[in-house]
Amino acid sequence: MTTKNPNVSVDCVIFGFDFENLNILLIEQKLDDTLKKNTRFALPGDLVNFDENLDSAAYRVLKELTSIEKIYLKQFHAFGDPKRLAKVEDQYWLKKLREQPAARVITVAYFSLIKMTDVAPRAASFAGNTHWVDINSVPKLAFDHDKVLKKAVETLRDDLMNKQIGYELLPNKFTLSQLQKLYEVVLGIKLDKRNFRKKMKKNDFVIPLNEKQKGVLHKPAQLYSFEPKDED
Amino acid sequence: MTTKNPNVSVDCVIFGFDFENLNILLIEQKLDDTLKKNTRFALPGDLVNFDENLDSAAYRVLKELTSIEKIYLKQFHAFGDPKRLAKVEDQYWLKKLREQPAARVITVAYFSLIKMTDVAPRAASFAGNTHWVDINSVPKLAFDHDKVLKKAVETLRDDLMNKQIGYELLPNKFTLSQLQKLYEVVLGIKLDKRNFRKKMKKNDFVIPLNEKQKGVLHKPAQLYSFEPKDED
Repeated sequence: MTTKNPNVSVDCVIFGFDFENLNILLIEQKLDDTLKKNTRFALPGDLVNFDENLDSAAYRVLKELTSIEKIYLKQFHAFGDPKRLAKVEDQYWLKKLREQPAARVITVAYFSLIKMTDVAPRAASFAGNTHWVDINSVPKLAFDHDKVLKKAVETLRDDLMNKQIGYELLPNKFTLSQLQKLYEVVLGIKLDKRNFRKKMKKNDFVIPLNEKQKGVLHKPAQLYSFEPKDED
Repeated sequence: MTTKNPNVSVDCVIFGFDFENLNILLIEQKLDDTLKKNTRFALPGDLVNFDENLDSAAYRVLKELTSIEKIYLKQFHAFGDPKRLAKVEDQYWLKKLREQPAARVITVAYFSLIKMTDVAPRAASFAGNTHWVDINSVPKLAFDHDKVLKKAVETLRDDLMNKQIGYELLPNKFTLSQLQKLYEVVLGIKLDKRNFRKKMKKNDFVIPLNEKQKGVLHKPAQLYSFEPKDED
């Protein structure tokens, strides 16, 4: 008997920040020449084993497919449309991989926001290759992964605005320009400099330091640090 | 062949607000005299059908077990500990109900925050009875429902602080005392009146009206309204 639960999978949305762009990590699926496309992209994901919990499955699957480990994965949503794996290409791919390719699978999705330089993805198992793709140029993905990615982006943006995730991507001491860049890259929009500074200075988690930038050619900017706050 | 996916269920955490307390809706499971307990409480939940999506399953199951419908359910987390249904009582109960009582089931959990007076729960199907229970006096629950409830409470509190959910439970025009009561009941703590008012007046989603309470015996209080804001 198989050790895999035919009805439950995990998928991982890995956001890579490189100070200029927001990218996501995709794996390549080699399809067949008889199909319209012979290659396509997907989020790293696979079935959960019967004896493992969902978080462990996410870490295992990410490592098996991309070699990435020791990053924090956060569960954000489960997707269970009965037709989520019903396309011809989906079924072609699943027949190669799974004992029950037609099984109804719900997937529990995880995401992570990391510095791209902190990891070195390397494809393994059924991942044909790994690619970092700019969030603004993502091709049509396998299965329902477009929907999963959309929800992940929404969650990430929401968490940046409401839970101050992402600050760990900045240096310990940062300028408001660096902070604005982080917000702009993650939110995918240009922000008005004056408004942004006014807002950030009102927050009680962005703390001005008694210190300025050093070794820069331009006028050195004020440095800030991040102090996470529990709501009271 | 059964129409139910043996490996995927939904559970619903219904928070009922009555202006004084926060309650949750539980259903009763009648067990057997040979067991340590012959009755216990659980969140309303059941297996997902093969042909329905997760949201539909949550609405259907809630209606089947408690007769509640037309409320908004929000998915918040999936739970998949391989041992989440392994207790003697769990297995006793599942053997009565399910074709594959030993199946590994992951559950996708939903929550809702409603005014208790807006619904009239009525037990049906395998729900022995329905009960509103004060969040501070919840007995030990079936399966892993203690864990599901704990996470639901965390999510609810987080959403109140960061997403201003809950304002729809107040009258359209409310006093800061009413608003403070809502926060206190949901957060489960007493708040300092002066600090609370200072904070709320700084927010741009709580808008003072040119209007005071009418027909009260005490000094009439200033009225406010809620204006949801998109982050900019």
